[in-house]
Amino acid sequence: MTNYSDLNNWMTTSRIETLVDGIFAIAMTLLVLSIGVPDVSSALTEAAFQQQLGDLLPKILMYALSFWILAGFWRVNHQQFFFIKRSNATMITINVCWLLFIALVPFSTEIIGEFGSYFTASVIFQLNLFFAGVLYCVNWIYAVRKGLIDENLDEASQRMVTRTSMILPFLSLIALALSYYVFAWANLVYMAHPIIKKLIQ
Amino acid sequence: MTNYSDLNNWMTTSRIETLVDGIFAIAMTLLVLSIGVPDVSSALTEAAFQQQLGDLLPKILMYALSFWILAGFWRVNHQQFFFIKRSNATMITINVCWLLFIALVPFSTEIIGEFGSYFTASVIFQLNLFFAGVLYCVNWIYAVRKGLIDENLDEASQRMVTRTSMILPFLSLIALALSYYVFAWANLVYMAHPIIKKLIQ
Amino acid sequence: MTNYSDLNNWMTTSRIETLVDGIFAIAMTLLVLSIGVPDVSSALTEAAFQQQLGDLLPKILMYALSFWILAGFWRVNHQQFFFIKRSNATMITINVCWLLFIALVPFSTEIIGEFGSYFTASVIFQLNLFFAGVLYCVNWIYAVRKGLIDENLDEASQRMVTRTSMILPFLSLIALALSYYVFAWANLVYMAHPIIKKLIQ
Amino acid sequence: MTNYSDLNNWMTTSRIETLVDGIFAIAMTLLVLSIGVPDVSSALTEAAFQQQLGDLLPKILMYALSFWILAGFWRVNHQQFFFIKRSNATMITINVCWLLFIALVPFSTEIIGEFGSYFTASVIFQLNLFFAGVLYCVNWIYAVRKGLIDENLDEASQRMVTRTSMILPFLSLIALALSYYVFAWANLVYMAHPIIKKLIQ
Repeated sequence: MTNYSDLNNWMTTSRIETLVDGIFAIAMTLLVLSIGVPDVSSALTEAAFQQQLGDLLPKILMYALSFWILAGFWRVNHQQFFFIKRSNATMITINVCWLLFIALVPFSTEIIGEFGSYFTASVIFQLNLFFAGVLYCVNWIYAVRKGLIDENLDEASQRMVTRTSMILPFLSLIALALSYYVFAWANLVYMAHPIIKKLIQ
Repeated sequence: MTNYSDLNNWMTTSRIETLVDGIFAIAMTLLVLSIGVPDVSSALTEAAFQQQLGDLLPKILMYALSFWILAGFWRVNHQQFFFIKRSNATMITINVCWLLFIALVPFSTEIIGEFGSYFTASVIFQLNLFFAGVLYCVNWIYAVRKGLIDENLDEASQRMVTRTSMILPFLSLIALALSYYVFAWANLVYMAHPIIKKLIQ
Repeated sequence: MTNYSDLNNWMTTSRIETLVDGIFAIAMTLLVLSIGVPDVSSALTEAAFQQQLGDLLPKILMYALSFWILAGFWRVNHQQFFFIKRSNATMITINVCWLLFIALVPFSTEIIGEFGSYFTASVIFQLNLFFAGVLYCVNWIYAVRKGLIDENLDEASQRMVTRTSMILPFLSLIALALSYYVFAWANLVYMAHPIIKKLIQ
Repeated sequence: MTNYSDLNNWMTTSRIETLVDGIFAIAMTLLVLSIGVPDVSSALTEAAFQQQLGDLLPKILMYALSFWILAGFWRVNHQQFFFIKRSNATMITINVCWLLFIALVPFSTEIIGEFGSYFTASVIFQLNLFFAGVLYCVNWIYAVRKGLIDENLDEASQRMVTRTSMILPFLSLIALALSYYVFAWANLVYMAHPIIKKLIQ
């Protein structure tokens, strides 16, 4: 006989992972829509057409950067869920909130790609990444506190995952501050990610 | 020897779940397109740009609300299919109709996000959610009647899932009525979802 | 030691099914973009706004019809692959061609939704469905001929699946002919699908 | 006790494959958006409407070609990962870079579909495919060098996969050169793919 306490048993981690993988694949592919094809008349010279395409360069660079950052989020998520063995309603709520910010990245990428010279555009992009970053830190810390992770994982490794999860929101804060001075160039800060990761391991 | 009665054996619940997960991941990510990047001239002052972005606020709030509601549907669906063990042609038809309304949510979200001050826009959004909600109630009730659910599930739990499934369509009806007086503000009703869920358990 | 003949061993049916499920979920959800939000000024009266939305009705009906037809394709595909046990390079090619027409459905739906009063629009839509329908008939007939299906399946059932697979391309041909006289109304022919299916079983 | 070296154990090949399958399904379906519905007035004659649709023909052909090429990439990827048994951080990085170019294909398809008479448009498309092609060669060569592949795979087969992986980037180079003389017609080169594949086996 199955009693009521089992009504929440469906909340396995594999369910969350399927939704996460789907939303990441789509968000990463939708990024390409943020580039947009120039609306040029068909009577242009080759040189004029090239110049029009040249104007797309900042958008293409932002596409590549956002793709790279989303891939980074995806990797950290998979590292976390390799160790998270159980789930509950609160964890699903945390992850839904996290995905809400992940799915918002194509929007904020388009904003910063089109209006990179505005301080406000950069703030929106950095805040989007910052909240996404904070929420997956919260996810890991919650999982550790509630004993939802693999109990064979030693404490040093736990702390290592915690620290790795903190790099991205930390970089977002720096990029946010730098935005005031250098606008979209602040995004170069994210290049430091692999270096910092090597340093703290 | 496989006889003709087996021709419908492919209709396992896992097949439906794959389609459901895919459509949810995409619908939730497509919601972001409903926000839309403002079409401003590039010669704006920072303050004017901020004001343009401020106009997006109702759309961003509607994005967050719809994302949250879709995630709620996804959770109830997984709870239902954790107990549904068999499937048949009618159940697939019910689910296809249900998914038709789920995939429509990005459209009705864009309508209410852009035209929130119109009563009609709110009606469209609430009716969309109402039909989606009713169809998954139908799905569960059908599964119980036809004995497609886990036979170890006791009757109290069955009724609990039924009641949980009824919260959302019930809230849609209230929001529909309130739309007449407060337009898009009627959506605040959905905030009561977790509270009601706690109360009826 | 693995010899060269194994280089094609990766072509299991499960691989095709994953791609099929993904493309279906996306094509069915992208259909919603074919509706499009009206580009109205924000100073409309409620009645004028309702009239604008009323103009969307043919598009919404086409959305529902295409969603339903795609779901029908998805069901027949799963029925076929429940019995197809092996795959090869040619079968993958057939399926890729088939998916090319499936992924085209959101485009032809938008064409017929927007230009339903043109005979040409209806022809494009019907030809799209016809080629998709023919290709999955080809898929099944090829699988039967090459002995890629479950060898326990009796011949009567084989022929039944063949006949079921032929309903949709047959209806497309009728709709194509009717388009000349009744334009987009020809789509009502697809409503006969479940009835014919019952009759031939 | 799980020690730190296990923190990278989550990087199984199945994880990469899920992301790859998702991004391919979406990129292949998003291609359809590159066709675009003509923005005609509703007072056209049937003949004028047909002419407008006729202008879409190069875009529809480019859609079909890109769909076919992406399907080719997907097939080679699955062939590779059928033999790749282990993964590491570098391989994930290679695949993320590869997917970045795959997800870019809908954009470059739209560019060449709309501006096929410009040399530059063709260069962008060919370079996109070339980099995607090179990166999956790199993926296979890296996997072979680092011993991440099935150790039962004999050397002749290894080299065969290497050669098969090189066809597409090689064709891209030829198409790139031909673009200077024949613009978008250079794409006909890709038709040679199955023939070359037969020849080198």
